Amino acid sequence: MNRDARALLIAATGEDPEPYREALKAHMPDLVVHDESESYDPASIAYALVWKPTAGLMARLPNLEAIFSMGAGIDHVLADPELPPGPPIVRLMHDKTREQMRDYALHAVLHYYRLMDVASAQQASRKWAFLQIRDKAKLKVGVLGLGEMGGAAARALAGLGFSVLGWSRSARQIDGVTSFSGADGLKAMLAESYFLLSVLPATEDTVGILNAELFAALPKGAVVINIGRGNHLVPADLLAALDSGHLAGAALDVFDPEPMPQDSPFWTHPKVRVTPHIASDGNAEICGDAVTANIRRIETGLPPEPVGDRARGY
Amino acid sequence: MNRDARALLIAATGEDPEPYREALKAHMPDLVVHDESESYDPASIAYALVWKPTAGLMARLPNLEAIFSMGAGIDHVLADPELPPGPPIVRLMHDKTREQMRDYALHAVLHYYRLMDVASAQQASRKWAFLQIRDKAKLKVGVLGLGEMGGAAARALAGLGFSVLGWSRSARQIDGVTSFSGADGLKAMLAESYFLLSVLPATEDTVGILNAELFAALPKGAVVINIGRGNHLVPADLLAALDSGHLAGAALDVFDPEPMPQDSPFWTHPKVRVTPHIASDGNAEICGDAVTANIRRIETGLPPEPVGDRARGY
Repeated sequence: MNRDARALLIAATGEDPEPYREALKAHMPDLVVHDESESYDPASIAYALVWKPTAGLMARLPNLEAIFSMGAGIDHVLADPELPPGPPIVRLMHDKTREQMRDYALHAVLHYYRLMDVASAQQASRKWAFLQIRDKAKLKVGVLGLGEMGGAAARALAGLGFSVLGWSRSARQIDGVTSFSGADGLKAMLAESYFLLSVLPATEDTVGILNAELFAALPKGAVVINIGRGNHLVPADLLAALDSGHLAGAALDVFDPEPMPQDSPFWTHPKVRVTPHIASDGNAEICGDAVTANIRRIETGLPPEPVGDRARGY
Repeated sequence: MNRDARALLIAATGEDPEPYREALKAHMPDLVVHDESESYDPASIAYALVWKPTAGLMARLPNLEAIFSMGAGIDHVLADPELPPGPPIVRLMHDKTREQMRDYALHAVLHYYRLMDVASAQQASRKWAFLQIRDKAKLKVGVLGLGEMGGAAARALAGLGFSVLGWSRSARQIDGVTSFSGADGLKAMLAESYFLLSVLPATEDTVGILNAELFAALPKGAVVINIGRGNHLVPADLLAALDSGHLAGAALDVFDPEPMPQDSPFWTHPKVRVTPHIASDGNAEICGDAVTANIRRIETGLPPEPVGDRARGY
């Protein structure tokens, strides 16, 4: 087929396609960009830029060469039961999104390490009481997931002098991070993790992993920070662990479903900090940048990167 | 005088001397340590470890070789009108206190950069609304004071990708930090500082420096973070700048007086975060470490470090 006719389809449920179109056209003025509201020739679509694409849509694009995810995760693409097996599913990965996640993680760990939650409560009751700074070596940070995002957070935390542990499905080595893997490794890491930062990908194996058993394996007084996926967490188990006094706090950025329902007990729980899925923001500009770089790779014969692993789910 | 008789006096107003005594004895079991409640021979005192020492006390120690401050500042020592001119006044400086200040500064800047104050307000009203991550390059951090503490904070902020400006009385060069000095330099830096971090030392020149004129020189929407000294700030001017909408927020760790009085409007101001002077904690252990290192220097003929400059006041 004619190279000039290779078009890109934006198929993003719940997202305005216009900023994405603008960001792509800014870099590639000649690229033909469609969105789902327009009529287009399915055979012309070489690329799809997607967020939770409608089931069956990808299968109706016979010349699809790559599916670009609008996020780091590909679970929202794999959810389509008719997904064609051929095209690579490209994760959104950019220095900016790694930096955003890292910054959120640094803020959250520093917030609890420096007892800012206690300081806020003191302020609310006009209480002036010194809060001693604890020894970083004794309050280890455990990072669940040492991929692009978790690895960046783990490195930065180690750089600030935190004693950092990291767990991943398969063993990984990161300078300054004590690595664990597998089920036994998970138990061993949890037992030492005063701050547990979850940056796990969304897969079948990780659904419900932040549950009562995992919380019980953490030391008393631990804090849980979830910036992975909402469905990793069992909300009732977290509430029980907070209310029993076993956990000291939780910072949650991701929820299932989102937006978090109005009647969620997290909104008002005194030990829970809620942020509206803002740990990273793969916005249209970042997305346009990353997709442009990958289309240029493809059109010069190189594979796009990073390509998600359909079997692993991330 | 006999070296074996060289004693240390702990003269700390409002501080329990025991943890300091223990920390010193842990490193130097043979050191004779007195506190003010004991009877001691003034002529035996070679070293004084002090916090707001009673006026005239230092002048009554004829063989005093060094005055160790329990804090980074020496203003509480210089306040003594009868202070003897001879002994060096040694500031408390330790990798740990620099790290503590740096961590507080990173947390505070990240907190406002990532709109965590807005996220907290949203949580309180069960509001789910996305908060876009702003461009770091457009929200510069201005650091007032590039000494031991300010320099460490500036370097770390630059390391996280912030665009960092720094001002000091006399010009300083720090990699990755755009430096300013003097009165004109101050104005120029303020005009660009969305986050203003004050780590200035306590001197006559810095009293009241955080005032209406300075706030007016900041861009609209700026945030002020004060971890220097409480008397740098003119409280009424800060309240006016917050209430007019010119400033978006303030994080205050130091106050004049401390503890902050119960009727201070800062306790309940929705745009003010109050912490009870916890940005750094030169605790007894850190102090014992630093004083031991300096006594060993003195006893091998080296000068202690860092020695405060009586004329500059820090």
